[in-house]
Amino acid sequence: MSSRDEKKRQTRQALMNAALELVGRGENFSSVSLREVAKTAGVVPTSFYRHFQDMEELGLNLADEFGMMLRRLMRATRQDKNSIDDQIRNSVEVFVHYVANHRTLFIFMSQCRTGGTPALRNAIRNELRYFGNELVTDIRASGLLPEVDLPDMEMIADLIVVAVADAATRVLDLPEGNQAHLNSLIEHTIKQIRLIFLGATLWKSKEA
Amino acid sequence: MSSRDEKKRQTRQALMNAALELVGRGENFSSVSLREVAKTAGVVPTSFYRHFQDMEELGLNLADEFGMMLRRLMRATRQDKNSIDDQIRNSVEVFVHYVANHRTLFIFMSQCRTGGTPALRNAIRNELRYFGNELVTDIRASGLLPEVDLPDMEMIADLIVVAVADAATRVLDLPEGNQAHLNSLIEHTIKQIRLIFLGATLWKSKEA
Repeated sequence: MSSRDEKKRQTRQALMNAALELVGRGENFSSVSLREVAKTAGVVPTSFYRHFQDMEELGLNLADEFGMMLRRLMRATRQDKNSIDDQIRNSVEVFVHYVANHRTLFIFMSQCRTGGTPALRNAIRNELRYFGNELVTDIRASGLLPEVDLPDMEMIADLIVVAVADAATRVLDLPEGNQAHLNSLIEHTIKQIRLIFLGATLWKSKEA
Repeated sequence: MSSRDEKKRQTRQALMNAALELVGRGENFSSVSLREVAKTAGVVPTSFYRHFQDMEELGLNLADEFGMMLRRLMRATRQDKNSIDDQIRNSVEVFVHYVANHRTLFIFMSQCRTGGTPALRNAIRNELRYFGNELVTDIRASGLLPEVDLPDMEMIADLIVVAVADAATRVLDLPEGNQAHLNSLIEHTIKQIRLIFLGATLWKSKEA
């Protein structure tokens, strides 16, 4: 990469980080202005347009970043060859701590999942759907739910994604560094996912 | 009520409706300005302050309205003395159609549940918690889950609330008036709640 390209990449990343920083300070992404982002990144507003068309395009790039992070996280937990209960516990623990350590990206996700522009909502929704599809692949490969057909497997994976996304939102509302609250949220979420799996083992798609 | 009080009440309601109207047009509540709300309601900005301190206070009043609506909705569905499967079906059908007919209030709820100010998030969270508590009361009264203790009953009700709140968010992303999409969302949500109940019938709090 030429030093000019490298400089361009750095400014681009600085703008994305600036948006996350403002979100981390309590602003809603949808009300963060391009001007504020440029100022926080230490560049002039016109320089913003050399990298992104508008704030929505910056947001879509953050959604990509969120997706990549989610994929790395999934790879890190899916090597697990333990019992299903242990797998649930490990995954939830890893996930909740991950959220606690990457607050601003998850605040952005949480805000835009329900309150972003249609394009942003859709991008976040797609990343979560990808997560759900990976879950479906893993559950099918495990052979744990032989009486569940593919549409119902997706319905179950979707419920798990919703529960996990809600857990992420709650992590973000906890005072930072409060380990006791974090642990109780982890136990709460583990129970919910175990309950879903318990229901799933009884689920017979043919009769549903 | 004196005609002056009545006039005051009307302006107050007009301001709240104006905020919902702007949200319905695609704006995020957190970026709607006091000035825009006053303009949409047809009053001067200074008049806003005779009713609300700021946009957050207006939002908190909308959260109250959301809560009242949720309570009316619950009363309407809980008279049901049918089988649990029928009760789930009826409640989900009533709820989804209700959301489709009160889009702007639910868009507001959905945005503020994850993206509002801390006070607003908390107000919405409390309304949803109230809904969860009512669910716990109903399930306990039904005697359906004798092996589930109170904390686990709350964990289960919470999962139902999360699934239902997510269904509401999805209704809002559907093109208006698309009955086929609405029906498929209804069936999806019914399956998820039935799965949760299925898991709950197997759940033994003592072993959990």
